[in-house]
Amino acid sequence: MASALSCSASDLIPLLSGGANATAAAAAAEFICGRFETVSGKFTDAAYAIDNTYLLFSAYLVFSMQLGFAMLCAGSVRAKNTMNIMLTNVIDAAAGGLFYYLFGFAFAYGSPSNGFIGRHFFGLHDFPKPSFDYPYFLYQWTFAIAAAGITSGSIAERTQFVAYLIYSSFLTGLVYPIVSHWFWSSDGWASPARSDNLLFQSGVIDFAGSGVVHMVGGIAGLWGALIEGPRIGRFAPGGKAATLRGHSATLVVLGTFLLWFGWYGFNPGSFATIFKSYGSAPGDSFYGQWSAVGRTAVTTTLAGCTAALTTLFGKRLMDGYWNVTDVCNGLLGGFAAITGGCAVVEPWAAVICGFVAAWVLMGFNKLADKLRFDDPLEAAQLHGGCGAWGIIFTGLFADKTYVSEIYGGDPKRPYGLLMGGGGRLLAAHVVQILVITGWVSVTMGTLFFVLHKLKLLRIPSEDEIAGMDPTSHGGLAYRYTEDEIKNGIISRGIDLDNDQERVGRV
Amino acid sequence: MASALSCSASDLIPLLSGGANATAAAAAAEFICGRFETVSGKFTDAAYAIDNTYLLFSAYLVFSMQLGFAMLCAGSVRAKNTMNIMLTNVIDAAAGGLFYYLFGFAFAYGSPSNGFIGRHFFGLHDFPKPSFDYPYFLYQWTFAIAAAGITSGSIAERTQFVAYLIYSSFLTGLVYPIVSHWFWSSDGWASPARSDNLLFQSGVIDFAGSGVVHMVGGIAGLWGALIEGPRIGRFAPGGKAATLRGHSATLVVLGTFLLWFGWYGFNPGSFATIFKSYGSAPGDSFYGQWSAVGRTAVTTTLAGCTAALTTLFGKRLMDGYWNVTDVCNGLLGGFAAITGGCAVVEPWAAVICGFVAAWVLMGFNKLADKLRFDDPLEAAQLHGGCGAWGIIFTGLFADKTYVSEIYGGDPKRPYGLLMGGGGRLLAAHVVQILVITGWVSVTMGTLFFVLHKLKLLRIPSEDEIAGMDPTSHGGLAYRYTEDEIKNGIISRGIDLDNDQERVGRV
Amino acid sequence: MASALSCSASDLIPLLSGGANATAAAAAAEFICGRFETVSGKFTDAAYAIDNTYLLFSAYLVFSMQLGFAMLCAGSVRAKNTMNIMLTNVIDAAAGGLFYYLFGFAFAYGSPSNGFIGRHFFGLHDFPKPSFDYPYFLYQWTFAIAAAGITSGSIAERTQFVAYLIYSSFLTGLVYPIVSHWFWSSDGWASPARSDNLLFQSGVIDFAGSGVVHMVGGIAGLWGALIEGPRIGRFAPGGKAATLRGHSATLVVLGTFLLWFGWYGFNPGSFATIFKSYGSAPGDSFYGQWSAVGRTAVTTTLAGCTAALTTLFGKRLMDGYWNVTDVCNGLLGGFAAITGGCAVVEPWAAVICGFVAAWVLMGFNKLADKLRFDDPLEAAQLHGGCGAWGIIFTGLFADKTYVSEIYGGDPKRPYGLLMGGGGRLLAAHVVQILVITGWVSVTMGTLFFVLHKLKLLRIPSEDEIAGMDPTSHGGLAYRYTEDEIKNGIISRGIDLDNDQERVGRV
Repeated sequence: MASALSCSASDLIPLLSGGANATAAAAAAEFICGRFETVSGKFTDAAYAIDNTYLLFSAYLVFSMQLGFAMLCAGSVRAKNTMNIMLTNVIDAAAGGLFYYLFGFAFAYGSPSNGFIGRHFFGLHDFPKPSFDYPYFLYQWTFAIAAAGITSGSIAERTQFVAYLIYSSFLTGLVYPIVSHWFWSSDGWASPARSDNLLFQSGVIDFAGSGVVHMVGGIAGLWGALIEGPRIGRFAPGGKAATLRGHSATLVVLGTFLLWFGWYGFNPGSFATIFKSYGSAPGDSFYGQWSAVGRTAVTTTLAGCTAALTTLFGKRLMDGYWNVTDVCNGLLGGFAAITGGCAVVEPWAAVICGFVAAWVLMGFNKLADKLRFDDPLEAAQLHGGCGAWGIIFTGLFADKTYVSEIYGGDPKRPYGLLMGGGGRLLAAHVVQILVITGWVSVTMGTLFFVLHKLKLLRIPSEDEIAGMDPTSHGGLAYRYTEDEIKNGIISRGIDLDNDQERVGRV
Repeated sequence: MASALSCSASDLIPLLSGGANATAAAAAAEFICGRFETVSGKFTDAAYAIDNTYLLFSAYLVFSMQLGFAMLCAGSVRAKNTMNIMLTNVIDAAAGGLFYYLFGFAFAYGSPSNGFIGRHFFGLHDFPKPSFDYPYFLYQWTFAIAAAGITSGSIAERTQFVAYLIYSSFLTGLVYPIVSHWFWSSDGWASPARSDNLLFQSGVIDFAGSGVVHMVGGIAGLWGALIEGPRIGRFAPGGKAATLRGHSATLVVLGTFLLWFGWYGFNPGSFATIFKSYGSAPGDSFYGQWSAVGRTAVTTTLAGCTAALTTLFGKRLMDGYWNVTDVCNGLLGGFAAITGGCAVVEPWAAVICGFVAAWVLMGFNKLADKLRFDDPLEAAQLHGGCGAWGIIFTGLFADKTYVSEIYGGDPKRPYGLLMGGGGRLLAAHVVQILVITGWVSVTMGTLFFVLHKLKLLRIPSEDEIAGMDPTSHGGLAYRYTEDEIKNGIISRGIDLDNDQERVGRV
Repeated sequence: MASALSCSASDLIPLLSGGANATAAAAAAEFICGRFETVSGKFTDAAYAIDNTYLLFSAYLVFSMQLGFAMLCAGSVRAKNTMNIMLTNVIDAAAGGLFYYLFGFAFAYGSPSNGFIGRHFFGLHDFPKPSFDYPYFLYQWTFAIAAAGITSGSIAERTQFVAYLIYSSFLTGLVYPIVSHWFWSSDGWASPARSDNLLFQSGVIDFAGSGVVHMVGGIAGLWGALIEGPRIGRFAPGGKAATLRGHSATLVVLGTFLLWFGWYGFNPGSFATIFKSYGSAPGDSFYGQWSAVGRTAVTTTLAGCTAALTTLFGKRLMDGYWNVTDVCNGLLGGFAAITGGCAVVEPWAAVICGFVAAWVLMGFNKLADKLRFDDPLEAAQLHGGCGAWGIIFTGLFADKTYVSEIYGGDPKRPYGLLMGGGGRLLAAHVVQILVITGWVSVTMGTLFFVLHKLKLLRIPSEDEIAGMDPTSHGGLAYRYTEDEIKNGIISRGIDLDNDQERVGRV
């Protein structure tokens, strides 16, 4: 390759000195142009290398969210159900890997296809293609398992393990891929990247998936939790709601921070490429997709931060204390909301997005308590509720310049209603909310209902009281001996710093 | 873009075959040069894409340090204060995000400005600029919250939550940004990148912030801890020091490793760009900023490793056992020390840096015990003490070649005293220590004192004894039921592997 | 640099209009070619920047595996030995850092050298070189400490700390580097990158180290565990095997997910470069090393996922319950197996690899119980057993195209037996298994035996029963006060959500 670029003056001299000699001129032109073609090819290669590096490491970040979910869920359930919920998170990733490889990716991105479902690349057959390479598959897989991870929270602490296996495979392999096809495949009926027939001349701008991922996972969880009903003890017969506290706030915070960390792959990574100038010619502007990726990281951060602070003060006023686990949930609600519009809104709008998201979550939580709806992770409220708000928010605040830089096409493309871009984007987004709610209700709602009728959904009450870990998973997650409890783990908490106590052996 | 680079021989032939024809020659020249300009522009774009990818992922790594702090702090306090300390870490990041967006970044980098404080980009207004893009803002935000995270450790287990909110916002939004302006903005009075009037003709080389971040956080913590005094039970009336052990060494190790992981964003990421050759012409050397970034990762690693080993053996000799939490602190002390000079010293010098840092930390800890100074995380000793040592170390060991590659400018630029570079760099560094100590003492010391006088700093003793989680945060972080304790969590630790015990339900 | 690329038409016009004038032609040619040389040099620089960014961040990911090991090991031992095992993981990294810097890297990659051992770069002397830069050193260091981390699991809960220090330094500084020299240095006697004398005209394809890392760590652990014998209580005198359950499944899952995360640095990162087209000319194909890196991430994922699912159902059938910790181990077994061939096999083959790996692990675990072999982390079975299977698997399934793209050279180069590539690759791989087993047995087996004879290997039984943390490490890892246990940590698990209970102070 380097040799094709190399230019030896002694080779070029006779060609140029031919002057009016047409043969020499032809040779000189070929010589020179051959090198420019090589240069152009090298840039193409460089773009692949840069973009795929960026995409792969983004995928790794999104993958780490699965660990975040596992820890968040583990901390939010009672100790006796810890192994159960963690196993569902591991299996989401594992079964998701296999099913997304076999079917899911094909249904989502198997192009060329129709507007409803893709139909190529089953088992990565005849892959890769110029438009889809392995890093893209990996990236999309991490999104698919995130959707399943959301749902597992809603139905925690009372669901048969076999039901998890079934819904998780169905969601990752079919329900979620089809939704992603609609909005993210360039063939999808509601995609903003279609060449024609854009929904409301706009298509839906759900950049990283407030709807495609969060609402899908949340609505699925909503039906699961509704159909199997609340956990024993969650609502007293009189009607009072009791909290069934999770067993470890430390795990909740650990999980939340890991999700935050991974969200930097989820949102800024959704550009899929970073080497793209927004200037009219190469190098004429410092401003390009790299700036947009960075801005997306900033809007994501600001929405989460604002939601966390809003929740902190909101809950302080309502409950009288500073609540760390609610702040964590508020933060995640802010992220779920900004996910759809993260790339096309200004940082100040992200602050508004997060502020409202916190109240949406607190409101839905109040409502859930009223309706005796029990979702141990608040996943339906958080991902469903804040996700839906995020979809509306994008319809209101999408910025003209950013929309046109990222989605291109028609200069009259609609953008946010409050930014002067008319109501068509918002209309498309209302359609998105309705369609996702309908589709997930029909598919996942039916599935959960059938499982329920087949007595495959909920565990027996005696198992629920005893805990799922001892009854289905071989024992509890934690184990300390009596001696450990006596001698060290229970202590008076203060040790005099004398040497006798501390002398040890090698 | 690709089209501007495309070179068709059939277009070029008539131009070249014109020979002495001046018009054809002009066209040929324009044709050829136009393509070279395009090539040049594409390289500019490629540099933006590569550098921003590197900077963004470095920022994500630095962000993960916030999780590291949360876990380290949680493990280092007693169980009854776990939720409190974790909430401060979440809020550091969240409030830090908002305040750094509104004010902090503007004070730090709002160029053009004077040597003391920046004055543009409030709320990211009129942003980005060629010199500052969003990834840079994100990167700097992660540094700002790290400083606040350090301080929260010093005042753990006895500080009112409202005091945290106040000092954290003040530190992230004002005190820290101003210090970073002095040393890191090219306008700063002590910056090594100023165009003229370099402090001691050198400026301060605090590459990733032994002073700007660690000393600032540490000195702030020192004043906080001094003003509110030691925790109840920490020093017996007779004068004996007692250890108030943290409740989980596992969390301490988890947090330490996460900080180590994140430090690879903190130190090697501080170059901000990686696509820069150090050779005299493009491609004439394999050696460039990518090597320097890698070397910085290596010096960071070696300093931490050496400090850990030194602490391991040092504490074994002193206390008679192998102490994992002290080794973790030693490791972090090595990192805090190398942070300032990581980019400009040789790997062997990093080994010296880490070795001394371990003794500095052990020494300051002995001194703290003597002076009845109580810092639950040893944060003042570690970040303040080892940070100060790192500043001196850089003045002694900065390498001539590395300084000139990274800071350029005058070939007579001073470097490390022991490397033959004269005393001017060291003199500038002594000034840095004095100025940071002074500035942080005046601002944060005063703030803590005022909070103290207003009775907003320390919690009531009965709350301290009961724990902050039950009194201010709604309950304890951990919760196990009696059944769990009886049946599983307390056990004899050995289970016969018989099937009856293990049979479970699906 | 930019200036060398700049092309001013006014400079070029007189040169081109010279026509037959030889001097002008020479000047024009030099002018044009000088710019192409600059372009070529800039691409070289860009490649360094891109490749080193990719390699450095991969190294950071592999480093995070050390945290994964620490958490996995901590969760898998009893609470009384937690600090001990975590300290060994911290010290592996720290001592490994120093020893790999001083000796290890030199023995592994100190080129030019002979086929057995390298001999340059001690203490990174005379470093970097065009072929080896700092990021490469950092990357290789993270591999070296991974090998030591594996072994620490096998000998957990009963080994003197001083024995850890000795074997870990010996393994990281000498035994492992020599093995990596044989298979990965281009001078190594079994390397597939040798210029001549390829072992069986093929050399060993151990892409990311099923043999070099996993078998080395596993065989070392096998000898350590064999020589010191099982833990007290592990095998009843009658012969029944008892499980000595680890104290926290949460930590096991945390560690497993972190290892999964880090494996994306381990396997896809092992290409060391990503900016390389596989097309015949630059830009003529979208397919290049970036695709291969992505495919490697996919094969890695699929092997782990399949192994996890296989273990899930396998253990359900055997033991009657859904076991999360065994699923975690199965997952890791799948990763250890695919590590050797990850880059040269098809995704569908990776599914086979993972399926078999799960059974290999379950089989070896049964065998270990029969033979009364006690390895608390199943590390010998997992890394040794599945690692060996991975070596065989690569000999069977290596794909012709992928082998030639990555290892180049002779078009008749052997590939997988079942893919029609003959038996020579497989033969080389059998040699690899034998040689690694022999070398590690002779070195590490002898070392452990000598330590045993010197009474430096195993701790006294009374210490083992009491736990290593209280006897050698200054106390237990966890500490809760009686009040915490009474008031919060033990609770009835259900709290009525009444305000009195929750009212707190600021």
